Amino acid sequence: MNSISQPTLIINESIARRNIKAMAEKARKNKISFEPHFKTHQSKEVGEWFREEGVDSITVSSVSMALYFSTNGWNKITIAFPVNILEINKLNTVLKHAALTLLIQDVETVAKLSVLNKKVKLFIEIDAGYHRSGVEYNSLVEIKSIFNSIKDSKHSFKGFYCHAGNSYSARGHLEVRKIYKDLEAKMSTLKNEFVEMKPHIAIGDTPTCSVINDFKGIDSIHPGNFVYYDYTQVQIGSCQLHQVAAYLVCPIVAKNKERNELIIYGGGVHLSKEALDTQEGLCYGPIGRMSEKGIFTSYSNSFVKSISQEHGIISSNSEILSSIKVGDLITVIPIHSCMTVDCMSRIYTERGSMITKMII
Amino acid sequence: MNSISQPTLIINESIARRNIKAMAEKARKNKISFEPHFKTHQSKEVGEWFREEGVDSITVSSVSMALYFSTNGWNKITIAFPVNILEINKLNTVLKHAALTLLIQDVETVAKLSVLNKKVKLFIEIDAGYHRSGVEYNSLVEIKSIFNSIKDSKHSFKGFYCHAGNSYSARGHLEVRKIYKDLEAKMSTLKNEFVEMKPHIAIGDTPTCSVINDFKGIDSIHPGNFVYYDYTQVQIGSCQLHQVAAYLVCPIVAKNKERNELIIYGGGVHLSKEALDTQEGLCYGPIGRMSEKGIFTSYSNSFVKSISQEHGIISSNSEILSSIKVGDLITVIPIHSCMTVDCMSRIYTERGSMITKMII
Repeated sequence: MNSISQPTLIINESIARRNIKAMAEKARKNKISFEPHFKTHQSKEVGEWFREEGVDSITVSSVSMALYFSTNGWNKITIAFPVNILEINKLNTVLKHAALTLLIQDVETVAKLSVLNKKVKLFIEIDAGYHRSGVEYNSLVEIKSIFNSIKDSKHSFKGFYCHAGNSYSARGHLEVRKIYKDLEAKMSTLKNEFVEMKPHIAIGDTPTCSVINDFKGIDSIHPGNFVYYDYTQVQIGSCQLHQVAAYLVCPIVAKNKERNELIIYGGGVHLSKEALDTQEGLCYGPIGRMSEKGIFTSYSNSFVKSISQEHGIISSNSEILSSIKVGDLITVIPIHSCMTVDCMSRIYTERGSMITKMII
Repeated sequence: MNSISQPTLIINESIARRNIKAMAEKARKNKISFEPHFKTHQSKEVGEWFREEGVDSITVSSVSMALYFSTNGWNKITIAFPVNILEINKLNTVLKHAALTLLIQDVETVAKLSVLNKKVKLFIEIDAGYHRSGVEYNSLVEIKSIFNSIKDSKHSFKGFYCHAGNSYSARGHLEVRKIYKDLEAKMSTLKNEFVEMKPHIAIGDTPTCSVINDFKGIDSIHPGNFVYYDYTQVQIGSCQLHQVAAYLVCPIVAKNKERNELIIYGGGVHLSKEALDTQEGLCYGPIGRMSEKGIFTSYSNSFVKSISQEHGIISSNSEILSSIKVGDLITVIPIHSCMTVDCMSRIYTERGSMITKMII
């Protein structure tokens, strides 16, 4: 902490390892496969924390990320993103190092995969209500035609993959459970429909994987964000504040006593511009102080209320303002840790080890 | 264009050079100094385009950025950000290469600058309505006490610096002119109040610098975004669409005919999560196609309506959807080019030259 002079992302390794362990144990108890998404941390060092919990299959969101992890000892990778046929050459490079599972949502793309140098497994991506990518869960004719095109190709059908990102709009366990129940029912219908092909059912979002304890009819979970969590996940109810493992530590560069505001060196290029709409207005992250040992304590009613490229403006109160001076450090909990991690190149654990990341 | 297989930021060098030339000429006509902000491009190559227009003094938003440009041939630099006293050592490093002008907004920080190894010039930062950083323009007692503390220090008083970022909420030239008139009046009052000290008056935002042609009582302009502009600036009226020089080219990875949507490889880690609130909902960038020569043509009523880490979802219509296929490239105009440039490491000109950027 003493050596920090500019915005620095601190990952609390102890907390992150606890988050990994808890999710790995939940998967073991349910006898389902745990294939965590690595898009949140994008780091070979953090990858090793997962390996120590017995993980050997991972999920990524781009071919570049697959290449990075395949050259860092991971040889079973699912790319949970619609296949980008412009990257066929890079896919062939990854296939030299790792077995791949890809996501498909149309017949034409299956045909284009004939030029891959090795066989891959194919998930048909399913849309169960998030409306981002994937085939509607009840478009059985379309799903069957994609299935048939896979059967006619040199590749193999693995099953159905669904990222229920709509769980991010839930607030509280009841709402998350409702979304999961709906997801489970839809995937179960699909599984019954294709029972002869023994489809593998994969789901992925952090809210349901955190809140739900019994996964019926699910074969694998692929959450990512849970490794660090963030303030959005606290709001959803996926975790509590003490389970958040990512913090942006920022220098205070000015005070405005009239408005009870602090100006920090820490803006959109550090936190990202992701915000939560709260009763007090837009929130770019609650703030607090961090001890030398990396323990975070919240300041009440204090949060980043606006950001520009390098500036962050903190709304606070006179009591907190009088306890803080220009040149002190303050700690911000990211709204969306995946985005903050992506912004930052200066990342350390609370013990001071540097965490490297893929560079594209 | 043929070699693009993943999200790629294209800077149209011809357009950017025209934007630079126009602003440099406007400053020459007004006989005021042009000290462009380099936070938008963060690039030594793009810096040279400015040098060719006679620029020799620049503005940056962090000590790291000052260090980068000072080691790339720039020796007159204003750091337009409240001095971060935790970076005194780095400031001393920059001072080995460049003369610095810093922004001050309190007496305590002036005192801390005694440890700088060389003299610097100090602007008192003024808040004329944006309410981000700076001293209120009419807090004359406070301004005088800061002035006195500078007079008692080894450094010298340069004048008043104001970034009227409130111009970003303007829509249309009339509203921008109104904000400028207000800014001009406030800075003029301040200039009169301190007339004996011959204060230098500096302003900086792209909207007013683009829309206003006659700068009375202003000594220097420090705009940054105008080099590339973006869709926000089009909405404000700072520029027209053909003056935007930054485009994100993205592969189309899937189509949804039922919802008239396209899914692109291009998300928050590429565009940033900055959005504009429009009548059609949130807009993360309008889309179109780009010719081999880098000429952009808009698609009507088509825009990125939502983004996650790597996915972008485009809302379009059946006519455009039927003219585009999976594996084609599509071009997105960024909402905020400074943020998109900061996200991207893969940046090329329309002629295919790579543009490098500072790495922190």
